[in-house]
Amino acid sequence: MDSYHVVVVGGGFGGLQAVQQLKSAPIRITLIDARNFHLFQPLLYQVATGGLSPANIATPLRSIFKRQANVQVLLGRVTDIDVEGRRVLMAEEAIGYDALIVATGSSHSYFGHEAWGSYAPGLKTVEDALAIRRRILLAFEAAEHQTDPERIKALLTFVIVGGGPTGVELAGALSEISNHTLQHEFRNINPADARIILVDHGDRVLKAYAEDLSASATKTLERLEVTVRTGAGVTQIGPDSVTIEENGKEEVVPTHSVFWAAGVKASPLGKLLSERTGAELDHAGRVQVQPDLSLQGHPEIYVIGDLAHCPDASGNPLPGVAQVAIQQGKHAAQVILQRREGKPIKPFRYHDLGSMATIGRSAAVVQMGRLKFSGFFAWVAWLFVHLMSLVRYESRALVLLQWSWSYFTWNRAASLITGEARSEDL
Amino acid sequence: MDSYHVVVVGGGFGGLQAVQQLKSAPIRITLIDARNFHLFQPLLYQVATGGLSPANIATPLRSIFKRQANVQVLLGRVTDIDVEGRRVLMAEEAIGYDALIVATGSSHSYFGHEAWGSYAPGLKTVEDALAIRRRILLAFEAAEHQTDPERIKALLTFVIVGGGPTGVELAGALSEISNHTLQHEFRNINPADARIILVDHGDRVLKAYAEDLSASATKTLERLEVTVRTGAGVTQIGPDSVTIEENGKEEVVPTHSVFWAAGVKASPLGKLLSERTGAELDHAGRVQVQPDLSLQGHPEIYVIGDLAHCPDASGNPLPGVAQVAIQQGKHAAQVILQRREGKPIKPFRYHDLGSMATIGRSAAVVQMGRLKFSGFFAWVAWLFVHLMSLVRYESRALVLLQWSWSYFTWNRAASLITGEARSEDL
Repeated sequence: MDSYHVVVVGGGFGGLQAVQQLKSAPIRITLIDARNFHLFQPLLYQVATGGLSPANIATPLRSIFKRQANVQVLLGRVTDIDVEGRRVLMAEEAIGYDALIVATGSSHSYFGHEAWGSYAPGLKTVEDALAIRRRILLAFEAAEHQTDPERIKALLTFVIVGGGPTGVELAGALSEISNHTLQHEFRNINPADARIILVDHGDRVLKAYAEDLSASATKTLERLEVTVRTGAGVTQIGPDSVTIEENGKEEVVPTHSVFWAAGVKASPLGKLLSERTGAELDHAGRVQVQPDLSLQGHPEIYVIGDLAHCPDASGNPLPGVAQVAIQQGKHAAQVILQRREGKPIKPFRYHDLGSMATIGRSAAVVQMGRLKFSGFFAWVAWLFVHLMSLVRYESRALVLLQWSWSYFTWNRAASLITGEARSEDL
Repeated sequence: MDSYHVVVVGGGFGGLQAVQQLKSAPIRITLIDARNFHLFQPLLYQVATGGLSPANIATPLRSIFKRQANVQVLLGRVTDIDVEGRRVLMAEEAIGYDALIVATGSSHSYFGHEAWGSYAPGLKTVEDALAIRRRILLAFEAAEHQTDPERIKALLTFVIVGGGPTGVELAGALSEISNHTLQHEFRNINPADARIILVDHGDRVLKAYAEDLSASATKTLERLEVTVRTGAGVTQIGPDSVTIEENGKEEVVPTHSVFWAAGVKASPLGKLLSERTGAELDHAGRVQVQPDLSLQGHPEIYVIGDLAHCPDASGNPLPGVAQVAIQQGKHAAQVILQRREGKPIKPFRYHDLGSMATIGRSAAVVQMGRLKFSGFFAWVAWLFVHLMSLVRYESRALVLLQWSWSYFTWNRAASLITGEARSEDL
């Protein structure tokens, strides 16, 4: 084992791939993450809607790398980077590096309205998902106690801001819950009375997809009784209402359940890197990287995934999706080895393997290059790709079993309200 | 449907059974619980040790009763009982009853040392289990950062107070984690160096069982490298140490991980009922019930399960176990119907179906009347009984699959640290 030391910060799709790529290299690797698990974020909406448990879509980082002897996993938060001294700083220690890969991703952005955060949770972490789940289920529970029709209507109104894949998937799952899962479970209210409103300021949902797929997604959502309001913005969010602006007119919609799927901002390590290295940031706080994913003047520092602003062939930044992060993780790891060995360095090229989003329980849209399809077979493809991508073989089997069961029974076994009320206070 | 209204407070083993028993009765039932799920508490230690997810051992109450049309489930906290007016009071509403069953169970008691609660969590709720899981895993994570052998030793010391089934099961699972699950996962520390100390003030563990079973349990625990300290008490618990007193000598053990499995106290509704009806409480706050489980002078109020002080044939109070609660739930429901129909009322008789506790992954002790056995077959029996008792068929299949996988791989897939550190702060 060599003393050459690569530090990877962040165990998401990018960081994980980078570490795995360095498996057989005669170097030492340290993987630092503030969480002890890798999270399969594309299925987080299933945790938020009670279909899956956090453990179904998360795998402890240590268990992933227990057989990879050249990596040490450290649970911790990076507080600063000493670029001159080549050290990352944590609360009580400093860790030197020869090469550094920063892959700490993004969180949601309220576009300057940070106060909205407490009324309209986003969906990035396990805790976010459990908070959304709690809100959805508590809204139905509170409605069951009410007699005032206006109060019931407000409680059963769910507004999702943002028509990207997360917003569309959340809306579809909410429709499934209200129209099927909760059927026969209440005595005072009819869960199917729930109104689900999907708001997007653009002219169509899923705008990263082809137009006919957007149209097909909208049609599916409407069949699921989701109100799709494109060309509409949100101007105010409070504890018991949201203000939707459309064609210059404002409408106050009484609701306690607003979910945020609209914007992302880069992890704060982006700003830190910019201050320490002079690297430029884009409007979302992402770090502009060189063609090989390193920072200008710092061939030993790489930024990948959602934290990186990396242009595609036509100059647009690559989207913040798992495939980009995975391919960049692989590339950064390769460049580190090539540079060490004095080999020529290639610029990063993204190979678009396509994208897919699911809408409810048996429809999806899939776009792979020129191939585009939607409906049931797209959903089966979505299921297959997502199941196969879960890190652990065990998770795959369990999630498949759980989904098969849920599919035929409309059940969502993980519909537990946790983290708040406690039985001993009863 | 009659207008006769039975209110059941608490959806644990007792309350669930009472409601199910009234399935075909021409009456109206309201089941009130502060949580939206029934929790299979005997397996909570598996959640605490990362073997299972909360959803594996919890079932939403609404989904249990969706097909039982005569019951309405209400999520809420009972704040008072108007005994004269026959109403239970909640935050914003009052619900009248003709008969009332109170089954709100117990929480852990620190015997007057309530300040210990923040250092030594107990194991009664899903949140307790996740807090214990977080502490166990964070102790190993923190140790991996350390170089000082004394600090590492303190971090890898786990003290469990109380040698009943919960304490024994927790100690066994902790041994499995440190000796097997975490093997190869760390680079600085050896998880097998962890010390697990089980403290009990009595002269043997599992004192509800026969003496030879206690001896066999102690032998199994020692084989699992658990230090069993019977005849020892805890006199102080702080953030980084516990003081153990044995034979008049005190020893300060540096540790950050003390878990409380020692005492229980009745739910606060016991005290409330005593104030409102004059019913007597025992030292643990349990309500003294009449032979038919009703309260003296209040044949319309029943107390069952862990909240009830109900003597057995020899005058000792029945233990706080699931079987007692289940049989009492059934009995109280029957008495309510018999009283309505003017039929003769029988006193409650407990049929002891035996008890079992597991120690680690392939040993258990079983006691059924005169039949006593321990070891692997006891463990298989334990597995069978507990799997069959899980409310949902789906849970049984999933838990069996998850256990089979864990058994052969020593894996604990649910080893996620949640609820504290968040990746966006990284």
